[in-house]
Amino acid sequence: MVKPIFILNGPNLNLLGKREPEIYGHETLDDLKAVCEAKAKTFGLGVDFRQSNHEGDLITWIQEARENASGLIVNAGALTHTSVGLLDALLAVPVPSLEVHLSNVFAREPFRQHSYISKGVEGVICGLGPKGYELAIEALAAMIGEGGKK
Amino acid sequence: MVKPIFILNGPNLNLLGKREPEIYGHETLDDLKAVCEAKAKTFGLGVDFRQSNHEGDLITWIQEARENASGLIVNAGALTHTSVGLLDALLAVPVPSLEVHLSNVFAREPFRQHSYISKGVEGVICGLGPKGYELAIEALAAMIGEGGKK
Amino acid sequence: MVKPIFILNGPNLNLLGKREPEIYGHETLDDLKAVCEAKAKTFGLGVDFRQSNHEGDLITWIQEARENASGLIVNAGALTHTSVGLLDALLAVPVPSLEVHLSNVFAREPFRQHSYISKGVEGVICGLGPKGYELAIEALAAMIGEGGKK
Amino acid sequence: MVKPIFILNGPNLNLLGKREPEIYGHETLDDLKAVCEAKAKTFGLGVDFRQSNHEGDLITWIQEARENASGLIVNAGALTHTSVGLLDALLAVPVPSLEVHLSNVFAREPFRQHSYISKGVEGVICGLGPKGYELAIEALAAMIGEGGKK
Amino acid sequence: MVKPIFILNGPNLNLLGKREPEIYGHETLDDLKAVCEAKAKTFGLGVDFRQSNHEGDLITWIQEARENASGLIVNAGALTHTSVGLLDALLAVPVPSLEVHLSNVFAREPFRQHSYISKGVEGVICGLGPKGYELAIEALAAMIGEGGKK
Amino acid sequence: MVKPIFILNGPNLNLLGKREPEIYGHETLDDLKAVCEAKAKTFGLGVDFRQSNHEGDLITWIQEARENASGLIVNAGALTHTSVGLLDALLAVPVPSLEVHLSNVFAREPFRQHSYISKGVEGVICGLGPKGYELAIEALAAMIGEGGKK
Amino acid sequence: MVKPIFILNGPNLNLLGKREPEIYGHETLDDLKAVCEAKAKTFGLGVDFRQSNHEGDLITWIQEARENASGLIVNAGALTHTSVGLLDALLAVPVPSLEVHLSNVFAREPFRQHSYISKGVEGVICGLGPKGYELAIEALAAMIGEGGKK
Amino acid sequence: MVKPIFILNGPNLNLLGKREPEIYGHETLDDLKAVCEAKAKTFGLGVDFRQSNHEGDLITWIQEARENASGLIVNAGALTHTSVGLLDALLAVPVPSLEVHLSNVFAREPFRQHSYISKGVEGVICGLGPKGYELAIEALAAMIGEGGKK
Amino acid sequence: MVKPIFILNGPNLNLLGKREPEIYGHETLDDLKAVCEAKAKTFGLGVDFRQSNHEGDLITWIQEARENASGLIVNAGALTHTSVGLLDALLAVPVPSLEVHLSNVFAREPFRQHSYISKGVEGVICGLGPKGYELAIEALAAMIGEGGKK
Amino acid sequence: MVKPIFILNGPNLNLLGKREPEIYGHETLDDLKAVCEAKAKTFGLGVDFRQSNHEGDLITWIQEARENASGLIVNAGALTHTSVGLLDALLAVPVPSLEVHLSNVFAREPFRQHSYISKGVEGVICGLGPKGYELAIEALAAMIGEGGKK
Amino acid sequence: MVKPIFILNGPNLNLLGKREPEIYGHETLDDLKAVCEAKAKTFGLGVDFRQSNHEGDLITWIQEARENASGLIVNAGALTHTSVGLLDALLAVPVPSLEVHLSNVFAREPFRQHSYISKGVEGVICGLGPKGYELAIEALAAMIGEGGKK
Amino acid sequence: MVKPIFILNGPNLNLLGKREPEIYGHETLDDLKAVCEAKAKTFGLGVDFRQSNHEGDLITWIQEARENASGLIVNAGALTHTSVGLLDALLAVPVPSLEVHLSNVFAREPFRQHSYISKGVEGVICGLGPKGYELAIEALAAMIGEGGKK
Repeated sequence: MVKPIFILNGPNLNLLGKREPEIYGHETLDDLKAVCEAKAKTFGLGVDFRQSNHEGDLITWIQEARENASGLIVNAGALTHTSVGLLDALLAVPVPSLEVHLSNVFAREPFRQHSYISKGVEGVICGLGPKGYELAIEALAAMIGEGGKK
Repeated sequence: MVKPIFILNGPNLNLLGKREPEIYGHETLDDLKAVCEAKAKTFGLGVDFRQSNHEGDLITWIQEARENASGLIVNAGALTHTSVGLLDALLAVPVPSLEVHLSNVFAREPFRQHSYISKGVEGVICGLGPKGYELAIEALAAMIGEGGKK
Repeated sequence: MVKPIFILNGPNLNLLGKREPEIYGHETLDDLKAVCEAKAKTFGLGVDFRQSNHEGDLITWIQEARENASGLIVNAGALTHTSVGLLDALLAVPVPSLEVHLSNVFAREPFRQHSYISKGVEGVICGLGPKGYELAIEALAAMIGEGGKK
Repeated sequence: MVKPIFILNGPNLNLLGKREPEIYGHETLDDLKAVCEAKAKTFGLGVDFRQSNHEGDLITWIQEARENASGLIVNAGALTHTSVGLLDALLAVPVPSLEVHLSNVFAREPFRQHSYISKGVEGVICGLGPKGYELAIEALAAMIGEGGKK
Repeated sequence: MVKPIFILNGPNLNLLGKREPEIYGHETLDDLKAVCEAKAKTFGLGVDFRQSNHEGDLITWIQEARENASGLIVNAGALTHTSVGLLDALLAVPVPSLEVHLSNVFAREPFRQHSYISKGVEGVICGLGPKGYELAIEALAAMIGEGGKK
Repeated sequence: MVKPIFILNGPNLNLLGKREPEIYGHETLDDLKAVCEAKAKTFGLGVDFRQSNHEGDLITWIQEARENASGLIVNAGALTHTSVGLLDALLAVPVPSLEVHLSNVFAREPFRQHSYISKGVEGVICGLGPKGYELAIEALAAMIGEGGKK
Repeated sequence: MVKPIFILNGPNLNLLGKREPEIYGHETLDDLKAVCEAKAKTFGLGVDFRQSNHEGDLITWIQEARENASGLIVNAGALTHTSVGLLDALLAVPVPSLEVHLSNVFAREPFRQHSYISKGVEGVICGLGPKGYELAIEALAAMIGEGGKK
Repeated sequence: MVKPIFILNGPNLNLLGKREPEIYGHETLDDLKAVCEAKAKTFGLGVDFRQSNHEGDLITWIQEARENASGLIVNAGALTHTSVGLLDALLAVPVPSLEVHLSNVFAREPFRQHSYISKGVEGVICGLGPKGYELAIEALAAMIGEGGKK
Repeated sequence: MVKPIFILNGPNLNLLGKREPEIYGHETLDDLKAVCEAKAKTFGLGVDFRQSNHEGDLITWIQEARENASGLIVNAGALTHTSVGLLDALLAVPVPSLEVHLSNVFAREPFRQHSYISKGVEGVICGLGPKGYELAIEALAAMIGEGGKK
Repeated sequence: MVKPIFILNGPNLNLLGKREPEIYGHETLDDLKAVCEAKAKTFGLGVDFRQSNHEGDLITWIQEARENASGLIVNAGALTHTSVGLLDALLAVPVPSLEVHLSNVFAREPFRQHSYISKGVEGVICGLGPKGYELAIEALAAMIGEGGKK
Repeated sequence: MVKPIFILNGPNLNLLGKREPEIYGHETLDDLKAVCEAKAKTFGLGVDFRQSNHEGDLITWIQEARENASGLIVNAGALTHTSVGLLDALLAVPVPSLEVHLSNVFAREPFRQHSYISKGVEGVICGLGPKGYELAIEALAAMIGEGGKK
Repeated sequence: MVKPIFILNGPNLNLLGKREPEIYGHETLDDLKAVCEAKAKTFGLGVDFRQSNHEGDLITWIQEARENASGLIVNAGALTHTSVGLLDALLAVPVPSLEVHLSNVFAREPFRQHSYISKGVEGVICGLGPKGYELAIEALAAMIGEGGKK
């Protein structure tokens, strides 16, 4: 059986739908989880959807993906811009991985325009809201079908 | 009838499939065009697919999209990093627009990690090769279905 | 009944009174807590006083303040200078919040002179030792009396 | 007979009156041309008014001004901030030349606050809308009357 | 008898209540003076409250505080960010001194986020409007009671 | 009766005609005053023409313009590049204001290429010598005729 | 009895031997622990060897070393480059402490060439693989024999 | 038969001999072409000598060199310092290529001391006037004789 | 009769002997004046010795030196590092001028290591206390004897 | 017979024990040489211990190590921070090499925190005084035993 | 008789052919000398070919060229990037001088992309291996024939 | 008997009087030596006057001054801006030392406006030509008379 896709969400994403809806939209994290599960199902894939405010949890989960996932989607939230530890974990992951942001981080404050994590993933999707997660799942499904990480 | 999606490709993308295939893949620009047309068709959308090595042509085409397109995908190639003129043109476009890159520009040389264009589009997709164009079409189709640019 | 003020202390503040007393003074964190409780009481306010060395805990507690606090005081310690996650959490807080530092961070090393957190609070008080906490409580009490966050 | 004043407009200025009117106003490029012709006439001067989205065209036109113009007004639009080629062309022009911007570029984004072109002109007028073109014509007329470039 | 507290206000603070009230509030400088006098009185302290648009006046007044004040509050306004002379004067003051800003300068333009003056004072209070002056008086009163500058 | 235009000149402009004539020309400040008065008269406007070497005087005069002027022209000389106080004063002025420089400051030393003041005015005119003052008066007259500051 | 040496390992070091062996070698963290215990034994010293992906854990453990360790070795992994909190904890440690890296971080990406932690330790050893840990133990043993931290 | 050497000249080089002769000398572009043809002939090589003010033309011509040239000389003029597109085109060229400048760009303004293009060529010759073109032809002839690009 | 040497002292130099004596020594400004007068007398020169905390006064006095002084010594204090106005005034002075600092500013904080004023004087003497003033007088006397400014 | 280890010491290390003993300790260079010889002997290795104030000597000696040494220890002193020539020489050395500093250079002035040399060695040891040389010998001995440079 | 051309080679060039041949090629410095002598002979010129690892030697030799050489070629190796002393010596040389590098330094590490020396020579040739020396001789011969340094 | 003053001159100062006389004047180094000897004699002091193009010689001579000189004057020429080794040597010198430059280095190119050496001397004198050496001797004589280095 195919291993699930890990979808890991970083700090403050548990507030989704409650915080700054003009930036992040009105859907909650549970809504987002449901959207992802439905989408993955269309490719015959399962989803392991998690959130933490702790960098250490996210690092541990990425490490876990080394064995237990067929692909990886990371929305590291604020840690995107400051965490070398997440980059190091991603560099050690043998399955395809993508970085996703709900908002268009490149059109926001300067300190949100740099990502350490980008250097450890196959690609980046941002600014498309929950749709971005769906597209990431679609892209991962294609990569997994082609034998995984390039 | 729904207006087509404009897909505009910048300098050197006419070399696709011939240049540095380890970075840009083996598909040619014509292959890419066919992929896009097929994908758009699944959403009942047409595609106007163009390429130029001239910044001025790209600016003019983006302006043209103001009237004649229902959505816009721009892969500005090397101009991504230096053209304020493309940004200005994009800021004047009332239809939804996305930035696409075949390679993961954020994992390459530092001068490729900054995009002027990002500030003028709804979202960015990079590192996913031709698949990235397909996902962009899918995202645009959804936005068009929801009434266009946010 | 009025909700309490959250007073959240970051990394190494549990060493207060033991570490570098020439910078941080001789009072312990428990002393500081007692000072705060006494001061708050004069305004008829309770205090929920916490400390953690984990950024994730502080983020979670700030989120909790959204529902359960009438005001918020944050001394994020070393995280002041590096945590975008704390800023994001503070930006989502609807109650008035203040940043406090025991020492005058602006007269110390350059890397201590920038705060991410300042952008997410109403005001900053620094360099006044435990007295700074008292003044912050007094300022919060006034804001709460005037109907909370501006 | 006195040679005309060249008035050269760069990328996206053909959108004038249609694009971001809160920044650039409601007059079109044709309106602006008419304003300039009327103003120049009061000084017995003709106007050669052009626009292009191509840097190369603007360079060629500035070169042409070496022989065929008595004065030169350049609004290089977005190329102001990035084109060394326009600067080089201006440095080779023996007639007086001025830089004009409709908006106050110095009060906008940081990347709009640097001009390569300023180093190759006699003076700069910005923030005054179409009136700025009129004033530039008046200033050029005075310089031409005094024997041209200083 | 105890010497008064000097409260020195820099450029444009005479416009208080008239200028940008969404940033600086509706109270005038005279209102602020009255608030300070009342607050100081509760600690048995007098206030010498002054304002000037001249850096030189502020330097001279700070020097005067060496002999004639028991404490010093400085809101240097725009000079905060550029005046080394005020810093030098403050470094020569033997009585406790505090820096106050009505607005939260750390959440404004980048050039307002650096203070030369901070290096010459005991502490900083900002973002709390006129209340910030009151808290500063309270803090100074405590320091004076404990024997002055640390 | 229409209030006069304030024309405020900063440090060292009293040396006009005596200092570095290859940069600043041979006309004195009195000549310049006469030129301005004559020009303003053609629009039925009076002029209040002042000079000071003190930043504080200029700030005070700009404040005065809030009540007593119909428009404002500022040549802040060397203070252009360093004074946040002048910017703050200009931001509080409800009448239209322009920045003028006799020389083309953008073609001189790097430290003369940045202006704090530009962010507080409607527009900038530089490099046109005394003619620049005349054009500024003309521009202000038009704005005043149209109802003042935009 | 002599207190043990604390050997604290940061994020991703639990992957040792599995991640990028061309950089980090083939030995696992358990192998490394055994090497350290054997080495320490030759000096009559015990070892308390720990790893965490959480900055907060590492801070807490360093604090614990204040009481319970005779010396401290820290390989903070990716946190080396971003954690001010670890620096603050180390500055509060009265026993001798050393920073160790398996790889030569100074010959890697620029963001790995700066260490906050270096400012809080007696010395640094890098690039020597597990041997570096052994040498650090030897150095600490000498310092402990000489009475501890200088 | 051996394919010709492409010699491509960028913006403003059509002004050669007319513009700033103290920097660029008195020879015209036609003179330079004749010099190059004569020199190439001594090695049995033809020359395809072109100039354009358009970046897009230069990119297209470099692409053309992939098939039709045995070697490539580029004097990109002002585009040297700003064009990533020329670099990308050069990186795709399988024949040996050299960068030439008439003047010693490294002894001029700072913005002329950086070349994007250098990263895409075998070598650079600058400061030697038309002689530099001759030497470049000589160097290319040697490389072609040795089997082309290293 | 020979005109006097102007010796102009900037902000906070009136505190000489009272402020930070470990940096600035124990002599007062009056002591320094006496030392200068005595030294100048040995060269048959008078001294006009002044101090102000106002930049505007110093600018005015430097302007006055154009007519009334045979040489100029400036210790601009804190204004050294921030005043372009003093530089402009010095550039307009036809008599020889020297910059003097009592302390070795180049061995102090970074912001004290840059001087705008140096660009407008013949030479600089720093770190030699009051002796530096004497040497400056001696140097000026030699220049005046040789016919003044080079 | 095994070739000796070269231990090369740069500028001012001949002053060891005489210069700033609070930073560099009280042992002289001769003491250090004796310590190294004794330590190396325990591994059956000889030592060639040298010092020079000339960069050229150090470069020549490193080149000599290519043929005549089994390992290399370099304490380049002040040249650490500025010499590209030493880096180039080290890059050409086929035997294992280490960089050593007596003091913890990373906790000193900013210009001492960057090393060109680090990029050309296997590892770095700093802050451990003469003990650091001993540990470096031990590390080299291990590498030599394992067949030299990695 | 015509004076010889000085060809001066800096640090580590004595390793030519032995060090990093993929960058510097397989020819030795003696081979290079022979190539240069043969080339110069074709122009009736002699060659004085030297190498040193000491900056001081190179400075002295450049000074010597003032009297004894008809032209100068300098490959300063690593000193290119750090030596102001070589620049100063070159600025004092009245004969034509060229800078040569075997590799294309502009396509290597950032710190190799800046040359102090370029500001003191007529031109630069890089990336062409030993051929670059031959072309430099040819260029110098032409300059000497035309009467030397421009 | 009093030890002599060491006067140490760096690279290219042996060209004095021959090189760029508009900057450095027409006197030779021998002239300068004679001036210094004469001046020192008036204070009963001898002079040891040396020059070298080698940094290593200058370091060694400064070290020698520790024992054999009563004071030290250093004109390090181009090494002023790049040599940390000279700074380290000066920091180890117990006798008073001064930095001298013939030209006003602060009014020249940016790279000449920073001195490493300033941090290791009592004071700096620049821009006064040979007179600067005389004044330095006078200042040193005073310091020696007062018991040497402060």
